[in-house]
Amino acid sequence: MSKILEEVLSANEHYSKNFGKKGDLALPPSRHFAILTCMDARIDPAKMAGLSEGDAHVIRNAGGRASDDAIRSLVISYKLLGTKEWFVIHHSDCGMMLFDDDIMRNLLSKSLDTATIGAKGWEDHGKGPGSKEASYVSFLAFKDLERSVVEDVQRIRRSPLVPSRIPIYGFYYDVKTGKLVEVPEAMKAGKA
Amino acid sequence: MSKILEEVLSANEHYSKNFGKKGDLALPPSRHFAILTCMDARIDPAKMAGLSEGDAHVIRNAGGRASDDAIRSLVISYKLLGTKEWFVIHHSDCGMMLFDDDIMRNLLSKSLDTATIGAKGWEDHGKGPGSKEASYVSFLAFKDLERSVVEDVQRIRRSPLVPSRIPIYGFYYDVKTGKLVEVPEAMKAGKA
Repeated sequence: MSKILEEVLSANEHYSKNFGKKGDLALPPSRHFAILTCMDARIDPAKMAGLSEGDAHVIRNAGGRASDDAIRSLVISYKLLGTKEWFVIHHSDCGMMLFDDDIMRNLLSKSLDTATIGAKGWEDHGKGPGSKEASYVSFLAFKDLERSVVEDVQRIRRSPLVPSRIPIYGFYYDVKTGKLVEVPEAMKAGKA
Repeated sequence: MSKILEEVLSANEHYSKNFGKKGDLALPPSRHFAILTCMDARIDPAKMAGLSEGDAHVIRNAGGRASDDAIRSLVISYKLLGTKEWFVIHHSDCGMMLFDDDIMRNLLSKSLDTATIGAKGWEDHGKGPGSKEASYVSFLAFKDLERSVVEDVQRIRRSPLVPSRIPIYGFYYDVKTGKLVEVPEAMKAGKA
């Protein structure tokens, strides 16, 4: 068994031993809201936003982007499980600002190994074969953090499946300070 | 300002005031692994799996499904940020087992308001107009929990962009006990 697998299972055993009454929590989020944010390891949405188990839906992907899949999740979140307010939260120092589709497709065409970034940009030291499959994938990288929040709030707002009464709040999380920073243009675009 | 927005910002202020040295954390996950799980409000991945800020990528969507977007995120996770092991974790009592595409499309065609589930199944009490847009969306619901974990591990394993050396561990989380339960067939399918 890998060290990580062992550690995760041992942490889980500890958690489940002290589970208390959390087994009685209902399925729908008790505080009726959802957060869409990045998969970044430095973000702990529960701590960042003050969530206890049972409070809120949390959707995460690379970048916290308003992908079709994130919108699928948000639609299920309100239509079947009653959330009424949504947050879109990107963050500073995001990995999504370090590449674009061309770079990623080029790296993956050379090898499937992990690349490294240096002064000259990304370098692939891996051995092939790579794959051309990445030509069929949009990786949803971005260059401008605040702009990316605005665009994602706008994309959710525009979905024909999203009721206009749901407010969508646009923020970014500053990984240096732990602070949520409002993006005024996104807040405007997300108004109910 | 909504009560939820106020509460989230106040919790965040408290968190950032006690941020300590977390501002120094590096971008790549220090424990080199990623978790794909459900957006369900009862799941706190950090507590469930023993994560501190900076440890691991966490990807979440409705069901914890291996959607194209989840695979996009996993590919970025290993190729650019060096994760080496992945967990797919679905859970008991998942909302995704309470409907299918037909039900969801029918509900959304009637109204965009929240539906309720009773003895006779889902009922829409909302006022229209609804939207036919849901015909273009696969909501990725499932009927069999363990089967869904197997299928998602298999789908990730089959991706031409996923190196065969990455082990993919298949589990479900029991929301009544807080325990991670291994899905043997998924573990087999996810072997490196």
